[in-house]
Amino acid sequence: MAAWSERLAGVRGVLLDISGVLYDSGAGGGTPIAGSVEAVARLKRSQLKVQFCTNESQKSRGELVAVLRRLGFDISEGEVTAPAPATCQILKERGLRPYLLIHDGVRSEFDHVDMSNPNCVVIADAGEGFSYQNMNKAFQLLMDLENPVLISLGKGRYYKETSGLMLDVGPYMKALEYACGVEAEVVGKPSPEFFNSALQAMGVEAHQAQ
Amino acid sequence: MAAWSERLAGVRGVLLDISGVLYDSGAGGGTPIAGSVEAVARLKRSQLKVQFCTNESQKSRGELVAVLRRLGFDISEGEVTAPAPATCQILKERGLRPYLLIHDGVRSEFDHVDMSNPNCVVIADAGEGFSYQNMNKAFQLLMDLENPVLISLGKGRYYKETSGLMLDVGPYMKALEYACGVEAEVVGKPSPEFFNSALQAMGVEAHQAQ
Repeated sequence: MAAWSERLAGVRGVLLDISGVLYDSGAGGGTPIAGSVEAVARLKRSQLKVQFCTNESQKSRGELVAVLRRLGFDISEGEVTAPAPATCQILKERGLRPYLLIHDGVRSEFDHVDMSNPNCVVIADAGEGFSYQNMNKAFQLLMDLENPVLISLGKGRYYKETSGLMLDVGPYMKALEYACGVEAEVVGKPSPEFFNSALQAMGVEAHQAQ
Repeated sequence: MAAWSERLAGVRGVLLDISGVLYDSGAGGGTPIAGSVEAVARLKRSQLKVQFCTNESQKSRGELVAVLRRLGFDISEGEVTAPAPATCQILKERGLRPYLLIHDGVRSEFDHVDMSNPNCVVIADAGEGFSYQNMNKAFQLLMDLENPVLISLGKGRYYKETSGLMLDVGPYMKALEYACGVEAEVVGKPSPEFFNSALQAMGVEAHQAQ
């Protein structure tokens, strides 16, 4: 294995995941993973730029940052690349007005988005919000559109909570894709555009990042 | 176009769909499609055997037949091939004990099925029963099984009600397939086994049926 100094030659920035890397979410705000608070602090004292890149879409960036700061992490909203703000940017650029099938915890990210007379559907990990009624509304709306646009914040199959495995947004994305005969646009990892927006946020090229 | 007499040469039995062919379901029990009551009556007066082959899975066969008889159709339970009874047969043959994610209207078909300690999941058009909680339970159960078995009663994308288009079982089948990395076994049309069971019920070979 190459020495760290060799592996890091030319590296100017580091992308860090959050859930399952910095901390485990759960009751009471979650717990930091051993060594991660100090690791982030050391990175920030170094010459390297740091950006946090997450698929978290049950919380707004503000809420996520507040949770992490309470756990001792040195982190600010501008350092977080998350699917909801990236989606808002896309909606604005393309004149899209969404029907939102999302978790209430992330709704504030869409406060300034025009949602009148929807011409697209945005789905995220909505948890209990994935009722038959809400899914059917999203479906009917897509079927009514001449050019149906379905945007999915991530496409994860499931995630782990203390109470067990939980269905993520991916299965519901697949359900709507099959029902409507459309292909969703995924905003979030592993989409290259999403990683690029995180790199842009810290002003670093792909070959300079780790 | 060949004359009817020519087209029917060698035909000994006829398979008839029900929903959208004999009647349109809806409030108040639905309405017969023009000419269909008399057409069924004529078929039954002929030398031809008749079997009704449906993917209906929100009602038991008994309830479906009662609805059709009230509308004037000459039909009995034994003449109906439907996914729920066919599924019960499969469960019995393979020693499967299902977790049922189905509509309450069809639950009575499974009255004599052992559901203790489930070792498979059966989904049907559950309507409002497709809550996040129920879907997550089906998902967790499949993930816990060494050999996960998912049986889906049909795989329709949607159907039409007077209130608009409604999501059918297919999208939810796709959701569980993606979440668990399994492939569902479909019981109902268009499965060849299902058509065969309808042919067997009237004692007619495939080449003798219309």
